[in-house]
Order: sequence, then structure tokens, then C-alpha cells
Amino acid sequence: MTESTTTDMTRQFLEQVRWTSDGLVPAIAQDAETNDILMFAWMNRESLALTVQEQRAIYWSRSRQKLWRKGEESGHVQSIKEIRIDCDEDVIILKVEQIGGIACHTGRRSCFYRRLENNVWQTVEKVIKDPSDIYSK
Amino acid sequence: MTESTTTDMTRQFLEQVRWTSDGLVPAIAQDAETNDILMFAWMNRESLALTVQEQRAIYWSRSRQKLWRKGEESGHVQSIKEIRIDCDEDVIILKVEQIGGIACHTGRRSCFYRRLENNVWQTVEKVIKDPSDIYSK
Repeated sequence: MTESTTTDMTRQFLEQVRWTSDGLVPAIAQDAETNDILMFAWMNRESLALTVQEQRAIYWSRSRQKLWRKGEESGHVQSIKEIRIDCDEDVIILKVEQIGGIACHTGRRSCFYRRLENNVWQTVEKVIKDPSDIYSK
Repeated sequence: MTESTTTDMTRQFLEQVRWTSDGLVPAIAQDAETNDILMFAWMNRESLALTVQEQRAIYWSRSRQKLWRKGEESGHVQSIKEIRIDCDEDVIILKVEQIGGIACHTGRRSCFYRRLENNVWQTVEKVIKDPSDIYSK
């Protein structure tokens, strides 16, 4: 009885999320210090529960249809500082410390490294580390 | 010939976006000065083209199935300072000046006004203006 009550309380915040028909919610990872947006991904119920439990970002990979423990290959783990939800309860923000300072698989700090200039998407952020050095570990 | 070439060049950045099967792309509105995330919405091709053309945020309302000129009722227009796209070309950031300092229909600065604290979504941002005063105009 006590155990199930505890579980219910723990799960209540998950019930409040308005999951898509596929059981997902968009998640925005934001640098907790600079507020820069680092990346955008999706979470399912299990990944959000695990993110809260382990205090590191765990997404749901739609392409691979499996849990994606951010940093499991690269070491670029995202340590959770704060989690927010929006007014419609259908979008999550993870405020994180980005270990290694690189969130993007291209070796850049942020995935949003292209800016629209005169109707052209221009790259405006440099590669910090060659991807072949990140993923060859 | 010249006219169509101009149109092609103008539209090329739209072609690069990886639209969903519904013809949409997620868009994150971010305060250009503080980097705070203000809201999350969706855009279709027309809304992104118009956003670039008019330099104000114009979304696609999925619930109303029509263009949503942010601020058309509230006056809380989002003036565009910068537009970014991510590595997968399937998410947009609008860096904006939020006119009136209120992005959320609840009268708060940001839609992300709830923070997860001990497994409960707690409201941590105050209402700046009563919604009935915003939308009664």
C-alpha cells in the first residue's frame, strides 16, 4: 500500500505530460549557465522517468526506436540542473551542464550552428572536436 | 526568367528544411537578449516564409489549422532578431524581441513557468498581466 502510494506520487508528474499519440514529448536541452539552446530531441515516458531518476538526459531515439542515453558513446553527458514544462504541458526543457562542452554530433557546442543570412543558412559556429575523434573511442 | 530565379533563390532555404509528413517544423522562440526560452510552436512553409518576409513570428496553429500571427490579438508581437536551424534541419529557433514582455497566454513572460521540484510541477514565474486584460482588447 505504502509502496504503491509512493509510486503513484512519483509517477504523477509523468501523467500530467500531454504525450503525443506516439507517446512522445519534445524536449529542448538548454545550457543552464548561458541559456544557449544546445539541441532538440524527443522523450517517451520511460526516458523522462529515467532522466529524473538518474539526473542525466535520456532521450528516445525515434530513428533507432530505443532509449538514447546522451553521451553514452561520446562521453558528452548532459547533467540535469532543472526541468521545466510549458503551459500546455506538451513540451519539456532540460537545463543542463553539457559535459565536454559539445552537444552536437558534428563536434560543435550546439546543434543550432546555422543562421539565416540573406536567405541562406550560414554556418556560424566552429567545430570544437572532429567527430571521428569523438566517436572512435 | 530573372523573376523566377529570384524566387528560387528566396525559396531555397525553405527547401532545405526537413518538414514533417504534415508539412510542419517545430519552432522555439527565444529571447534574443536573455536567451530565455519563451515558447514552442509549429510552422509550415508559408508561415516560415512570411516570418522571414515580415520579420515577425508567424506560426501555424495546429488546433485552428490556420496561420497564427503571434500578437495579433494580444499585441505581444515577436520581432525577429535571428533565425537558426539545427544540424538535422528539422528544428527552427527564432531569436526575438518579445514586445510587451509577455509570450504566454497566461500572462507570464514565458510559457515554461513550471519547474519540476520533488516530482511536482511547481509554478515559479509570476503573472505579469491578467489574461482577461490581454485579450479583452
